[in-house]
Amino acid sequence: MKIAVMGYGTVGSGVVEVIEQHSEVIAKRTGGEPLEIAHILDLHDNIGDPHEALFTKDFNDILNDPEVKVVAETIGGVNPAFDYTQKLLKAGKAVVTSNKELVAQKGLELLQAADEGNTNYLFEASVGGGIPIIRPMNQCLAANNIEGIAGILNGTTNFILTMMIEQGMSFDDALKLAQDNGYAEKDPTADIEGFDASRKVCILASLAFGKHVYPNQVETEGISNITLEDVSYVSSANGVIKLLGQIKYINEDKIAAFVSPAVVYNGSQLASVRDVFNAILVRGDAVGDVCFYGRGAGKLPTASAVVADMLDCAKHVDRKKIFGWGAGEEDYVVDYRSTIEMPFYVRAKMSESDAVNIFHNVKFLSRKGQPSDEVAFITDKMTENALKEKLADSEVLNIIKVTNY
Amino acid sequence: MKIAVMGYGTVGSGVVEVIEQHSEVIAKRTGGEPLEIAHILDLHDNIGDPHEALFTKDFNDILNDPEVKVVAETIGGVNPAFDYTQKLLKAGKAVVTSNKELVAQKGLELLQAADEGNTNYLFEASVGGGIPIIRPMNQCLAANNIEGIAGILNGTTNFILTMMIEQGMSFDDALKLAQDNGYAEKDPTADIEGFDASRKVCILASLAFGKHVYPNQVETEGISNITLEDVSYVSSANGVIKLLGQIKYINEDKIAAFVSPAVVYNGSQLASVRDVFNAILVRGDAVGDVCFYGRGAGKLPTASAVVADMLDCAKHVDRKKIFGWGAGEEDYVVDYRSTIEMPFYVRAKMSESDAVNIFHNVKFLSRKGQPSDEVAFITDKMTENALKEKLADSEVLNIIKVTNY
Repeated sequence: MKIAVMGYGTVGSGVVEVIEQHSEVIAKRTGGEPLEIAHILDLHDNIGDPHEALFTKDFNDILNDPEVKVVAETIGGVNPAFDYTQKLLKAGKAVVTSNKELVAQKGLELLQAADEGNTNYLFEASVGGGIPIIRPMNQCLAANNIEGIAGILNGTTNFILTMMIEQGMSFDDALKLAQDNGYAEKDPTADIEGFDASRKVCILASLAFGKHVYPNQVETEGISNITLEDVSYVSSANGVIKLLGQIKYINEDKIAAFVSPAVVYNGSQLASVRDVFNAILVRGDAVGDVCFYGRGAGKLPTASAVVADMLDCAKHVDRKKIFGWGAGEEDYVVDYRSTIEMPFYVRAKMSESDAVNIFHNVKFLSRKGQPSDEVAFITDKMTENALKEKLADSEVLNIIKVTNY
Repeated sequence: MKIAVMGYGTVGSGVVEVIEQHSEVIAKRTGGEPLEIAHILDLHDNIGDPHEALFTKDFNDILNDPEVKVVAETIGGVNPAFDYTQKLLKAGKAVVTSNKELVAQKGLELLQAADEGNTNYLFEASVGGGIPIIRPMNQCLAANNIEGIAGILNGTTNFILTMMIEQGMSFDDALKLAQDNGYAEKDPTADIEGFDASRKVCILASLAFGKHVYPNQVETEGISNITLEDVSYVSSANGVIKLLGQIKYINEDKIAAFVSPAVVYNGSQLASVRDVFNAILVRGDAVGDVCFYGRGAGKLPTASAVVADMLDCAKHVDRKKIFGWGAGEEDYVVDYRSTIEMPFYVRAKMSESDAVNIFHNVKFLSRKGQPSDEVAFITDKMTENALKEKLADSEVLNIIKVTNY
């Protein structure tokens, strides 16, 4: 079967590599014909590349090739990926992608375009890189009401937090190391401020509960305010700080969805996720907690997920999968601050008796070198708004959510 | 769509419960008609059961009902489940099961019967209970050469080991607690001697590498020889002892597959799997390590996986999935003792200098109350046969494999 690849960056070139190096296992697993790369869309010249003859700079070469049935979009970003993908789907060509930004922003319109073209738009690689999550959630957990999802969805921030926790490295040094290792970009904003994780939360929430959730509906807080002091206090409570995307089902018409640092207690599967690894925990009413772990980024892990989706499309080329979600709603994602109760970690300039006066019941934490005018503690469950009201007159140094995953 | 359930024990009654309590989400996820239970096959009378009218003791009521398209087999064991399943598949009815014994022993014949009937035989629930593993391995990791698999595949033994590790409970006391909690049966042999895990290894190996592996090909060692002394020594090396099923790809014609206690170092995703939970780690050449975690047994988790397979069959009722494996071969599974090199944990009556004389390079472990004539250490990588040859003249107290997962 003829296929095309759009974009020849890290993931796109990985897709070509995975297809070429796995022809045997692909043929065995699909029982079918091999994937044959007919075109690679790229704006560079790629002179001397072994695939030189396959390159084109003109998208229409792919759109107008009737033999091409499946296309991988690894361009990234919304433009021109959106326009290209929409045209291909409407023309009845299946499209698979690793482009989380596009799926989070335009997933609904592209799923509708796929309906129109009676074809499939798949995006297993857009969340968790090579970790199987989209398909297991859609198929294997189909007989569950999903109650909540919590995920370590960004490898860069998890690497930085791991260095802070395990090496006592400062945030700035850990970020620099991540950049030196190629895990973080020169402008690391999308990672460290949580925007990347937020897009993945949108995709997971949309798929789990059937209505499109957009990035601007997901309250997002990054890790740049996390200090070694916080790490140390949380460690004294047998916990670690992770950047989590969280989704909670409230009812048919309401969910909560947010990205923020969170205290995870050791013993949770999420606590032992180190380095650049990702993990996604899904809580179902029948199955309980299931957790999916692996490399959330990287050339070959992500490419292998893209190629698996292409194989699925190749098998379903004459058949529309039941997959996707409907339109979103403005008030569908609630303000979690006023609705979701949870315990909080608080670090503040106050005395222990001040803390007890305010909260009655708290669990105090400690750290080496703790100043006499600083306390840190875990509160009982309450909303974030209630917490902030109680702390209105206090000098608060940091507040971090505490999860029950 | 009309379906039937064969066997009304823990899993079978769970299947009925999950179908009834999830009709809304099932309809949403499948975009289709609900599953309607037409028959429940059970030899008990079930008088007063709310489904009393659906019960039959005669298998032919299911086989001969042309409206029944999908059947759940939760009878367990080989007979009569094999005969029933084979007849249903040949008659073109899809069958899904949680019956690992049947799939491990008769999977090939039943997959062939499914071919004959142009229908599907699915068994997601047979490995890892509610954890999605069969479908992700078959579909999501399709573009990987799988290099190895390691799994905590039995909840009972993992519970016992957890109690030994965390509570310092003896094996006998932990087993008794597992029985009191309903995690272990009165005759716990199949669990503690590793036979249950061995069946799951057969299914995973068959699916991953395409040739049927039978339980008698999987060298199997249980946990009854593990002592608190071993637990304590391993803890001093920052490790834990787990009962692991391991599968290693050697080449197109050879694999290794075995079940045994194994030392897993903390930091591994497998090390933090506590209590009755299961986890399966798959190592692919493109994706790296991915790990699937959740409840490996229990009524509703297992039932939710059975129902998910029924939904998949319902969607594919007119269509054969590309899924399964071919015939096995006598010499396909190698004797790992002579071929696979790994480090070993050794506890023996000898001096440290004896150990150094024999192995040159070892890492000594320690425990509280260690007798002066006892040592424990981790060796370099070697085959188990080479190890045993070196220890031929020594008084060995225990030997445990050390994994690299």
